[in-house]
Parts: sequence; structure tokens; C-alpha cells
Amino acid sequence: MRKIEIVQGILDANEATAAGNRAAFDEQDCLAVNVMSAPGAGKTSFILRTIESLSTDNRIGVIEGDVVSTVDAEKVHDVAHAVVQINTNGMPESCALVADMVHVALQRMPLHELDLVLIENVGNLLCPTEFDLGEHLKVVITSTPEGHDKPLKYPVIFAQADAIIINKSDLLPYVDFDIDEFTRMVRNLNARVQFFPLSCKTGEGVAEWVTWLRGQHQRK
Amino acid sequence: MRKIEIVQGILDANEATAAGNRAAFDEQDCLAVNVMSAPGAGKTSFILRTIESLSTDNRIGVIEGDVVSTVDAEKVHDVAHAVVQINTNGMPESCALVADMVHVALQRMPLHELDLVLIENVGNLLCPTEFDLGEHLKVVITSTPEGHDKPLKYPVIFAQADAIIINKSDLLPYVDFDIDEFTRMVRNLNARVQFFPLSCKTGEGVAEWVTWLRGQHQRK
Repeated sequence: MRKIEIVQGILDANEATAAGNRAAFDEQDCLAVNVMSAPGAGKTSFILRTIESLSTDNRIGVIEGDVVSTVDAEKVHDVAHAVVQINTNGMPESCALVADMVHVALQRMPLHELDLVLIENVGNLLCPTEFDLGEHLKVVITSTPEGHDKPLKYPVIFAQADAIIINKSDLLPYVDFDIDEFTRMVRNLNARVQFFPLSCKTGEGVAEWVTWLRGQHQRK
Repeated sequence: MRKIEIVQGILDANEATAAGNRAAFDEQDCLAVNVMSAPGAGKTSFILRTIESLSTDNRIGVIEGDVVSTVDAEKVHDVAHAVVQINTNGMPESCALVADMVHVALQRMPLHELDLVLIENVGNLLCPTEFDLGEHLKVVITSTPEGHDKPLKYPVIFAQADAIIINKSDLLPYVDFDIDEFTRMVRNLNARVQFFPLSCKTGEGVAEWVTWLRGQHQRK
């Protein structure tokens, strides 16, 4: 008797497409990173800093997810090896990237030329947790002015993260953000995650993140 | 021939429930305000400051929307006249409050005793735009560390707002936030909106917001 495959809905379909994306990345030995955060936490600045630090010996592609507009894609256009903008407006799931959007983006990208693809998700701490994109690593950016209680309120995204960037460390003297309390709360959700406090504005701490990311590519 | 009413789906059903909520608020001469922002922009601090300024002569109820946790409800518990927590986790639309959740919350609130109900939506700039809750006013909080380009990326929420709070004005010396550029971008989307730059941390600017809110109640 043949096994009958049942696709149970959008999430099953997404998983299948994500697996295809991951296979495409693997075939080209390309590391894929899904970058997620609340609006305004600094995803684009983080991507720019990462490219700046790695582009001497890595070719980097960027997939920019936004509901509307191309402002982020324009910012990375001059420094990335390839950029594709996805506007989710009007799509069934407009509050996050889904695997199929990334699949379409990859058809427009010279994946065989790339070492790293950074995927900037839509600014949202909720919807992106539901959709695997086929990435190898999930990076969540929190920024110090948001306060340290976010893991209590958006636990799933922090539980899923491979690395957490604590951005805007330059604002620590002016905001109420207790790094120890934040890391303790995240540790309760996620024992294996790595933390990188840094400032995309000043560049402080970026080197530690980039060193870790290089290590991840080598381990792959 | 009788007219056949067709409910076309979740959004139509939401609109009908929202109209019922609005009628319930109106019947008790109670002003309802939907407070929306990205995670960490300061919704709870803003609600606390508003209560502090108005509670001498207003009885205020708060509906707290969160995916999980009751941390915000606990913060407002001592100062509000009534608090109801809604946890959206596991609900069909978990990334925003919907009218039906507010309808259920109102059954647990002494609405006849209240002058004002502040509804703290889930931290999200996208999903809440789709669901009328039956509120009279939509207030969107942006915070200065998020940067002034958010209206370009999340235009719908700024277009719908009756008032925009520019919170964390105390951080203006340390962040790149151009208020003129921000208001110009919002004005392109929304000619009638009111702006209130303020700091929930220092209290600066809160009086102007509260004066306007009092005026809205009188006009109702």
C-alpha cells in the first residue's frame, strides 16, 4: 500500500518549502540567518555592521522583508553582494516572512556565489515564530530601551533563538535595562542560546558576534 | 423578500462585535481608548502616567492584552479602578486583540462605574490594524530609540491613529530621531492626527496629552 501524504495546511506546506530552502543553502555551502526583532530594534543597522565586518572574505546576500517600502533594501544595496526585497503587503501572512517568499527570493539570488545570506524578517516578535524559512540560525535582536521584561511577554521567539543580540548597549546609562535579569529570564526558556551585547551605533561588541558567526559557518 | 445577511468571515464578525462594544461604552458614557505600539515602546508606563494624571476625578478601567503573562496587569492593578487581563495565546488571532476578547473582558468590568477604559493591545505594529475593538480613539505610541522611519514601514497603523505619542523624549539627545521628519512622514498618511512628544519616565509632556484626552471625553 502506498503511503498517502497529507499536507495539513499552511504550516505543513511552509515546513516542506523551508526544507527545500535549507537544502538549496546547504548545496551551495551558504549559511542562512533569520534576523528577527521588534520594530526599531536595529535589524538593518545590525545587518550593515555584520556585512562591514565580514565582507572582506565573504560574499553576503540579504533578503529584506517588509510589509511595504524598500528603505532597508536601499540601505544595504551598496554593501551587499546581492539584495532581494520582499514586500508582504497583501499576502496571506503579511506579519512575517514565510518559506515560500524566501523560496521566490532565492530564485532571484546568485546563491552559488554567496557564503552567507542574512534574512531580515518583518519587525514583529510574534508572527515570525510560526514560520521556519529554511535558515540555519535564528538571531533575535532586543534593544536596551525596550526594557528587560520582553522574554516574559514574547517567550516563544526567545526560546527559539540561537543567538540574542542585545543592541543599543550605548544607551544602557540612560535606560532601565538589567542585563543580568534579562539573561536569567531567557536562560529559563533557552539553555543553549548565546548572548551578544553590542552597539550598532558605536560598533562596540560587534567583533564578538562576528567571531561567533564565523565559527557557525565553519561548523556547518 | 427578506434581506439575507451574510457574515463574510472573521473581519465582518469582528466589526459587528466591535459595534456592540462601542454601544456598551456609549451607553455608560465611557470613553474607550485602544493603545497600540511596538514591543517596549512604553504602553504600560503610558497607561500608568495617564491614570496618575486623571484618577482624581475619573474612574479608569484597563484591559491588558498580552500573548502570555500578567506582568502588565499587575503593574496597573493598584492604581486602576478595574483591570482585566486577556491572554491571546492559543487564540486564532494571537498577535492582536480582537473585538470578541474585549466583549468578554467588558462582562468582567463594572462599566457603569467607569469614565475611561484604556485597552493595552498586544505589542505589534501590524496585526492590531485589522481589528476594530469598539474603541473611540486609537492611540499609537512610537518611541524615539525606534528611529523616525517607522511610518514608512508600518504606514497603516499611523494612518489610523487619532493621537500619536512620541515617547522617551528624554532619550532624544542620545538617539537619531528627527521629530520634524517623523511628523512630516505621518502627515502624508494622516492629516488630522495629534502629536504628543512626552517622557513617561520624567513626566515631561504628559499634561498636554491628558488635557487633550479630557477634551475628547467632553466632545463625545
